[in-house]
Amino acid sequence: MLIIGENINGTRREVAEAIEKKDREFFERLAVAQAEAGADFIDVNAGAGRGTRENQIADVEWLVDVIQAATDRPLSIDSDDHAVMAAALSRYSGQRLILNSITAEPERLEAIGALAVQRQAWLVALAMGKEGIPDTAEKRLEACEVIMTFLTRLGIEPERVYFDPLVLPVSVDSTQGLVTLRTLEEIKRRYPSAKTVMGLSNVSYGLPNRKLINRGFLAMAAYAGLDAVILDPLDAKAMSLLKVADLLLGKDLGCREYIRAHRKGALVG
Amino acid sequence: MLIIGENINGTRREVAEAIEKKDREFFERLAVAQAEAGADFIDVNAGAGRGTRENQIADVEWLVDVIQAATDRPLSIDSDDHAVMAAALSRYSGQRLILNSITAEPERLEAIGALAVQRQAWLVALAMGKEGIPDTAEKRLEACEVIMTFLTRLGIEPERVYFDPLVLPVSVDSTQGLVTLRTLEEIKRRYPSAKTVMGLSNVSYGLPNRKLINRGFLAMAAYAGLDAVILDPLDAKAMSLLKVADLLLGKDLGCREYIRAHRKGALVG
Repeated sequence: MLIIGENINGTRREVAEAIEKKDREFFERLAVAQAEAGADFIDVNAGAGRGTRENQIADVEWLVDVIQAATDRPLSIDSDDHAVMAAALSRYSGQRLILNSITAEPERLEAIGALAVQRQAWLVALAMGKEGIPDTAEKRLEACEVIMTFLTRLGIEPERVYFDPLVLPVSVDSTQGLVTLRTLEEIKRRYPSAKTVMGLSNVSYGLPNRKLINRGFLAMAAYAGLDAVILDPLDAKAMSLLKVADLLLGKDLGCREYIRAHRKGALVG
Repeated sequence: MLIIGENINGTRREVAEAIEKKDREFFERLAVAQAEAGADFIDVNAGAGRGTRENQIADVEWLVDVIQAATDRPLSIDSDDHAVMAAALSRYSGQRLILNSITAEPERLEAIGALAVQRQAWLVALAMGKEGIPDTAEKRLEACEVIMTFLTRLGIEPERVYFDPLVLPVSVDSTQGLVTLRTLEEIKRRYPSAKTVMGLSNVSYGLPNRKLINRGFLAMAAYAGLDAVILDPLDAKAMSLLKVADLLLGKDLGCREYIRAHRKGALVG
């Protein structure tokens, strides 16, 4: 499974403070630690900044400079503002690149779709439109269809699209775990060349022992066809479970990766 | 998910020794501990005994007497010898009962099928015939079809049948995790009223950190449609994962069972 390290996210207080203080070393450490722990991509979200778009742009430019100097792992540029994303891209010189994210909203599709074409980027595509996360699989799949139709017209191959089926908390609606997993399976059925991606933590919102729930959900999603995950690569239990998932799903020939992780003492849980 | 506690199994040395010594207290403790930990059924396997069928019969009769005096949980009588099973049944007065197990072998179907009819028992049906565990889903499903045809003729409702799709180690063949999960899904598709059951531990044979693998497999199997599991109910991490699986699959309305387990301090992992 492809691992996108989620730790550099400006919506978290600690990260927002480090951005504000321009704490270069904080981000160097966080980038290197995620890369060493096995992240294939490093997600970069500069957060809401100090209010203005100019500040957000300055922040993300600084952040991209710092992180690409610290690691050779490719970046996932994470913003819902295409101007912020364009600014980040102007500083990023890597070949491999994820744009995180688009939705079925026309303006976002147009602006970020154009950036994806320019840079030959992969895209994270959220299965939603303007109204937020739909609570049914059908409506999420309608959003996927809008996105796929638009991107196909732009000439973007389905292989470049990572659909996120999205997750709502089971504490609010007990059917939502299944809604997400069924959406994921149906995306794989309808668009066999497209990929899928998920962040996990929303599913356990409002409940105790959240990581336990998130890991159970990750195992199920892996079986349902998940290709990539956005998570904390410093969470050794989650990373161990990913090795187990590959092992159980026939993706670890000769159990080599699993046994290698065991020898490194990296298997926990 | 229905939980069948596997701990009283005479193929384990400690248990075999306790049978030989007729250590009543050992079995009373093991039965009560499993019931308190959440086992819905207590599996009773008297093992191979001291060689002769007479000894096996004497052992299983003693064991059933001891265990049903210690707990009011129903029993799962576990033997591949129908004479041993009949002896166990002659001592068991409970209404609810699992016979573990039948296969597609005609003699076993006839003998144990007849006992199931007599006692209105549930049956664990292994997806295999005389030749041992097939390595393909197709052959396992052929065995299921033989079993289902036979039991239907005896008038046994599909609701009473727990099919075990069986598990071979991924260390021997990396596709076997998927073979089992696909077999499980196909059983649920072909026989929508029938149930499924699994023991987990075979999947991780020959590998380190086996319980980590077994739990990952359990989460996937739960999503694939597993109705019952044969496991060690004293394994708090596995039991916690079962709560998580029910939560994620919409089987724990209002998250009540999960939160109750949390308040008891029972969630681990």
